Amino acid sequence: MKFTLPRGMRDIEPEEMDRREYVFSVIKEILNKYNFQFVEPSMIENLETLTAKSGPEIEKEIYFFKDKGDRKIALRFDLTVGLSRFISSRNMPQPTKIACISNMFRYDEPQYGRYRSFYQWDAEIFGAKGIEADAEIISLTSDILEKLGLDFEIRINSRKYVEGLLLENGVKQKDLLSVLRIIDKISKLTKEEIKKEFKKVGLKEKETENILEICNYKGKNIPKPEGKNKLLLEGYEELSQLSSLLKKMNKFDKCVFDFSIVRGIDYYNGIVYEAWIKNEREQVDAKGVKQLGAVAGGGRYDDLLAIYGKSMPATGIAGGIERLLLSLKDKEIKKNPGVQVIFVNEKVFDKALEITEKLRKFIPTDIDLNKRNFSNQLKYANSRKIPFVVIVGEKELQEKSVKLRDMETGKETSVPLDNLEEVSSLVQQRLK
Amino acid sequence: MKFTLPRGMRDIEPEEMDRREYVFSVIKEILNKYNFQFVEPSMIENLETLTAKSGPEIEKEIYFFKDKGDRKIALRFDLTVGLSRFISSRNMPQPTKIACISNMFRYDEPQYGRYRSFYQWDAEIFGAKGIEADAEIISLTSDILEKLGLDFEIRINSRKYVEGLLLENGVKQKDLLSVLRIIDKISKLTKEEIKKEFKKVGLKEKETENILEICNYKGKNIPKPEGKNKLLLEGYEELSQLSSLLKKMNKFDKCVFDFSIVRGIDYYNGIVYEAWIKNEREQVDAKGVKQLGAVAGGGRYDDLLAIYGKSMPATGIAGGIERLLLSLKDKEIKKNPGVQVIFVNEKVFDKALEITEKLRKFIPTDIDLNKRNFSNQLKYANSRKIPFVVIVGEKELQEKSVKLRDMETGKETSVPLDNLEEVSSLVQQRLK
Repeated sequence: MKFTLPRGMRDIEPEEMDRREYVFSVIKEILNKYNFQFVEPSMIENLETLTAKSGPEIEKEIYFFKDKGDRKIALRFDLTVGLSRFISSRNMPQPTKIACISNMFRYDEPQYGRYRSFYQWDAEIFGAKGIEADAEIISLTSDILEKLGLDFEIRINSRKYVEGLLLENGVKQKDLLSVLRIIDKISKLTKEEIKKEFKKVGLKEKETENILEICNYKGKNIPKPEGKNKLLLEGYEELSQLSSLLKKMNKFDKCVFDFSIVRGIDYYNGIVYEAWIKNEREQVDAKGVKQLGAVAGGGRYDDLLAIYGKSMPATGIAGGIERLLLSLKDKEIKKNPGVQVIFVNEKVFDKALEITEKLRKFIPTDIDLNKRNFSNQLKYANSRKIPFVVIVGEKELQEKSVKLRDMETGKETSVPLDNLEEVSSLVQQRLK
Repeated sequence: MKFTLPRGMRDIEPEEMDRREYVFSVIKEILNKYNFQFVEPSMIENLETLTAKSGPEIEKEIYFFKDKGDRKIALRFDLTVGLSRFISSRNMPQPTKIACISNMFRYDEPQYGRYRSFYQWDAEIFGAKGIEADAEIISLTSDILEKLGLDFEIRINSRKYVEGLLLENGVKQKDLLSVLRIIDKISKLTKEEIKKEFKKVGLKEKETENILEICNYKGKNIPKPEGKNKLLLEGYEELSQLSSLLKKMNKFDKCVFDFSIVRGIDYYNGIVYEAWIKNEREQVDAKGVKQLGAVAGGGRYDDLLAIYGKSMPATGIAGGIERLLLSLKDKEIKKNPGVQVIFVNEKVFDKALEITEKLRKFIPTDIDLNKRNFSNQLKYANSRKIPFVVIVGEKELQEKSVKLRDMETGKETSVPLDNLEEVSSLVQQRLK
């Protein structure tokens, strides 16, 4: 019988696991440098915990079910909810900087680079109301992408600033969220489609043109607002302070203000940002396919925590691991492929096993557990793409040595048995 | 409103995360040395995939539900099923050595050290029928526990050997699995309870005494069987070969043959083993509480894979991460606690931020994002148990230096600004 996986689910292959492990290690390394604490909120939550943040409409997009005690439980769809609940139910020194890398589930249509089960990294700062916290999140995001060797750009905006601009350009307070959600789709829709959407919320042709022009702004400076619109002035102040902090942290080079970045979720109320792999959006717009979107996005959400019973300011970011892996696609993740010990015949197997055990102190080492003959052992090494083998033969054992063979060139080097560490250094030299 | 977690679920705190991360890294390091490939089978499976291995009775013990398309899906309850399905649906070079560390779910009664969501590490070898593969699994398990600094013992048995003994001592073929399941509970029940259980399957007083005596055997040698019982002779041969291999791999010191180890699951058909933290079972038997059980267990299951459509020999081990963490309880996992940069007043904040950024290249570094005053910054460092702070003051800046203060002794050392790396080496020296 053939067993399949449920729709939208997948297994992760060894090659992706190695690359994922590398990405995880970089994210952990950077978050450790910023002294974030790692936690893991429960993967299963009561349904009410999830709907408290996102309303009952979220039920359509998540896995929820009744357990055997008839209680409605659900699989988490992000880490922000779990981390917010986590923080609300504890008394940790503030600011609290916590992070998590783990998997979550969404019941939406599978598409390119998107599954119903996926991984995210998430870093949040709770209890810090100043822009310093937003700057720290942007700074660490920059460090992570830099360390991964990606060519990226962090696109920054202020919800206050952009909401101020929208209100000045004919958008009514009640329509603000709808308009933000349309702007959020700018990179995915054509200009005509966007105009149609704006028309639906009652915007005039001229207002639409103005808004599109605003959203088109991208640059290193924030236009100083005229007039006395309070939101706009506050937003301007925040963005100015942010750019000055990021300059001091040596991160502003990678940042740009981009007024099309609005994060169309209602709870954001301050600085918002997305990290994009450079030029990707442009390339994709032209072709209209394979849109990967931002590799990370976040912002300030000072009012969300009150829902979970403890009012405190909050800011943070989440990034998709699968998207990061796709961005890294052409990069080689160097992993030591190790060696395989080859025994020329069964008589020397025992000795070969002892040598294997010793080699493992220095380098990943395999031996054919099926004890096949010489040429089939070499075939096995080839099929597993192992680039070097250590040959154990009777003659060599008498000379108290083994032979290290480069499977590509066929070149062999003799290594004395009492200096097996040399195998590891020879392999590393040649792999360079 | 207060949000709780579903029964049996839990969040993982920062302290446990650090310890878990340490345990994961040790397991990965050792499995890498044996050249295992890591994979991750899907967390959600079709229900039929899970019942194929364990029968419909497993439904009582797992989380399963209908998705929105009315398909029965379930959360995995172990990794062996997923890894077996994974291997069956691919053509990888054999022997295939694959591993996974991840979480799973069981709908059983929460108890000491047991939650409904938990983590396991799992290593399996597919396509190797010889004892060499069993020896490799035992060897890597020993390496992992050794590296974790635990005092352990690997208790080994052969299902063939023990089944042969049982058949010679009055157990009928049809009752074999029931008797094995009773033996599996020997460490958890009193002698009287065990005797009662044996009586239920129709064993006579004398037979029960004999079986209990057999199960009581623990030693470095396997008693050579008399007579011609084929199972018994095969089992003896396997165990002899295993002990000779383990000796060559330098692992036999940590191993003992223990005929009470039977792994009461029907699919095991060869060598079986469990890793126990030394003396724990004894201690627990006396008190009768807080039984942690084995930290890992496994064996050979050559007939299971046929269920998933591809017949091949298999052997492997799984271990509970939470149990390992409990065993490690008193061990200190060293993690660099980092430093906090303290600015004496707001005027030097910008400079302090630049110093923070530079320090992060060498050591985890915090700065008070809430820009509180000097004494409140120190309070924050204390509340987070940060042992060293770097003080940035106006006078020090003029002298192009900062002060490193040991929070416990109050001792201060001056560190020049152009040699901030020294902070990291000073901290590491003092932490030793």
